[in-house]
Amino acid sequence: MIHDFVYDIPVKVYFGTEQLKNLGPELRKYGTRVLMTYGGGSIKRIGLYDRVVKEIRDAGLELYELSGIEPNPRVASVREGARLCKEHRIDVLLAVGGGSTIDATKWIAAAACVDHDAWDFFDYKIWAPVEKALPVLDILTLSATGSEMDSGGVISNPDTRDKHGRMHPLLLPKVSFLDPSTTFSVSAYQTACGSADMLSHIIEVYFNMDQDLYMLDCVMEGLMKTIIKYTPVAIREPDNYEARANLMWASSWAINGFVDGGKQQAWSCHPMEHELSAVYDITHGLGLAILTPRWMKYCLDESTVSKYVQFGVNVLGISPEKAPMDIANEAIERFASVLFDSFGLQRTFPEVGIDESHFDSMAEKAVQGGAIDGFRTLKKEDVLNIFQMCMK
Amino acid sequence: MIHDFVYDIPVKVYFGTEQLKNLGPELRKYGTRVLMTYGGGSIKRIGLYDRVVKEIRDAGLELYELSGIEPNPRVASVREGARLCKEHRIDVLLAVGGGSTIDATKWIAAAACVDHDAWDFFDYKIWAPVEKALPVLDILTLSATGSEMDSGGVISNPDTRDKHGRMHPLLLPKVSFLDPSTTFSVSAYQTACGSADMLSHIIEVYFNMDQDLYMLDCVMEGLMKTIIKYTPVAIREPDNYEARANLMWASSWAINGFVDGGKQQAWSCHPMEHELSAVYDITHGLGLAILTPRWMKYCLDESTVSKYVQFGVNVLGISPEKAPMDIANEAIERFASVLFDSFGLQRTFPEVGIDESHFDSMAEKAVQGGAIDGFRTLKKEDVLNIFQMCMK
Repeated sequence: MIHDFVYDIPVKVYFGTEQLKNLGPELRKYGTRVLMTYGGGSIKRIGLYDRVVKEIRDAGLELYELSGIEPNPRVASVREGARLCKEHRIDVLLAVGGGSTIDATKWIAAAACVDHDAWDFFDYKIWAPVEKALPVLDILTLSATGSEMDSGGVISNPDTRDKHGRMHPLLLPKVSFLDPSTTFSVSAYQTACGSADMLSHIIEVYFNMDQDLYMLDCVMEGLMKTIIKYTPVAIREPDNYEARANLMWASSWAINGFVDGGKQQAWSCHPMEHELSAVYDITHGLGLAILTPRWMKYCLDESTVSKYVQFGVNVLGISPEKAPMDIANEAIERFASVLFDSFGLQRTFPEVGIDESHFDSMAEKAVQGGAIDGFRTLKKEDVLNIFQMCMK
Repeated sequence: MIHDFVYDIPVKVYFGTEQLKNLGPELRKYGTRVLMTYGGGSIKRIGLYDRVVKEIRDAGLELYELSGIEPNPRVASVREGARLCKEHRIDVLLAVGGGSTIDATKWIAAAACVDHDAWDFFDYKIWAPVEKALPVLDILTLSATGSEMDSGGVISNPDTRDKHGRMHPLLLPKVSFLDPSTTFSVSAYQTACGSADMLSHIIEVYFNMDQDLYMLDCVMEGLMKTIIKYTPVAIREPDNYEARANLMWASSWAINGFVDGGKQQAWSCHPMEHELSAVYDITHGLGLAILTPRWMKYCLDESTVSKYVQFGVNVLGISPEKAPMDIANEAIERFASVLFDSFGLQRTFPEVGIDESHFDSMAEKAVQGGAIDGFRTLKKEDVLNIFQMCMK
């Protein structure tokens, strides 16, 4: 069944190498007092920091800064950002970085407008409403999470070992600047993790037994082919603009909501991975890469095999002549090879330092909102089984 | 080369069968005095007129009407609409119909805000600026032009035998309602013409020798496969929701600007066809269907063959093993067969009552802004040759 849906993505995107001249005018639409947020020193190393500061100063805007936003951003950064917004009566936020920086900045924008603690937005018992948020603009420097074009953000709370994502339309960036050349300096490893994340965003939607829009399946197949084709190119030739541009634009469209028009299925690997990286602080995309092929294997049976066949034939180029179950198994193997051979990511939990000691509590938390009602329904036991499959 | 581009499509889309309840609240955001525009009686026949009027009245809005907007809408309708807007101090326009109604309504929205004649927006010597426009919402009833999600409109002037399109961001609809079931009553012929129009929108962008975003080529291939797959289904089973839904959403994405991100090439078949339908008033999509395979054949040589191969292999399923020129020729033939056999459209100019008598003036007008600088540069002589190829 094709469900009704609303498509509403009013994010304006400046794509390309010569777009920063539009930054000042775009910021100025929302006010004069700008809080720029970023992570470590990478934006300084590539010269982006200086270019951005110059544009802001040339536009006559007042600049404040919050640096040190971490990968898997923490609620402490959100609190600090909100404090700065209130103290300096900030009009508009500018996130410069990858998904972590943008995610944190979205929630700073919301937390700046309320008196309660920032974690109240994520505590399942409180789930404070989002009724207002400062405008957020961003300059993306990593192709991965799609945060530049969606309304969500994932925040970690190390004290409680929680990591929760939440979406709200008020958190959609007003404007995103996507310059593929800012990702030339992204390491092979981070490039691979980003691409694994993008592929997972698509797979979470694509693996669906609902009879839905064929057109969107075709679009998803095109995005997956793009990511599979260009990730090894970007790893081999970090400053290949064509590869970086394709990966960057694909990252946005993998998750901005377009491809899941009419689909209502919950995600599977992301909730499992969030518990992993909440405990182990591994890179989100790496956790997804290890989990996804196992999850695929776990969910395969006669009732789901047709989707694997579609995936294998249309995305991985497997001949449609073979038996469906053979195509499905080959598709899982080839996909694992994409992640572990072509992208060069680590293959098992032990390789990344994860043992069984937290399996039980992680699985418990992954289903604390109820069983994962995705491609296949996953209860705690299923999650434990999939974790176990990742051990070798 | 991948050119810089700006992506900015803030149109909100309500997709599905149960969305009209949102019409009143969406209109109300823009005011209380609504001018509803439509064509002939088809929206009354399918009961849509009554449903829309009820929603508007229930929302407490004041309703005015302009009916009789013609296919290939004429400047007289735009003038009349603008007059009504001024007379009744209209706040917001609601177009209910296909691309013609929406196109006309966009230009009514602009003409309502100026004192000069509506044709001044289209007269190449005047080209009056668009500085303001009333907000436009629409309810789409025909999958074809993509007007529901783009900023353009094409208007005809029978007095001068001119037909011009023009785009402006102020003309983007604020909200579009896409209910595939409203297209159940679209005839086989109009369905086929609409799909030919959509395919042309994609082909005008896809056939491009620029080294551009592979990702967008993949998306376009997916859209073309969708249209080719579902058009015969919709023709055979007019109330097949899956087919109508895929065609409707594909129509929007074929031309809303997403797929041509970074591409700067001018279109070829559309300017030629506009001259045809300005003189003969044939359905736009039919004119495109007749022209496109001839144009493909005319542009094929060693320097362009690779694009035909990509098209033939990825969209039409031709084996990549054959020689490139063979694949290209087979692709053109198969594509012609899609249009003329699978869609059932007429194949030649004489079949639709077009003879050579206006070729010279039509070709002249097609290049009056300069040669058509598309996939291949087309001068007047080239246009004449292509017209000639359509005679048999």
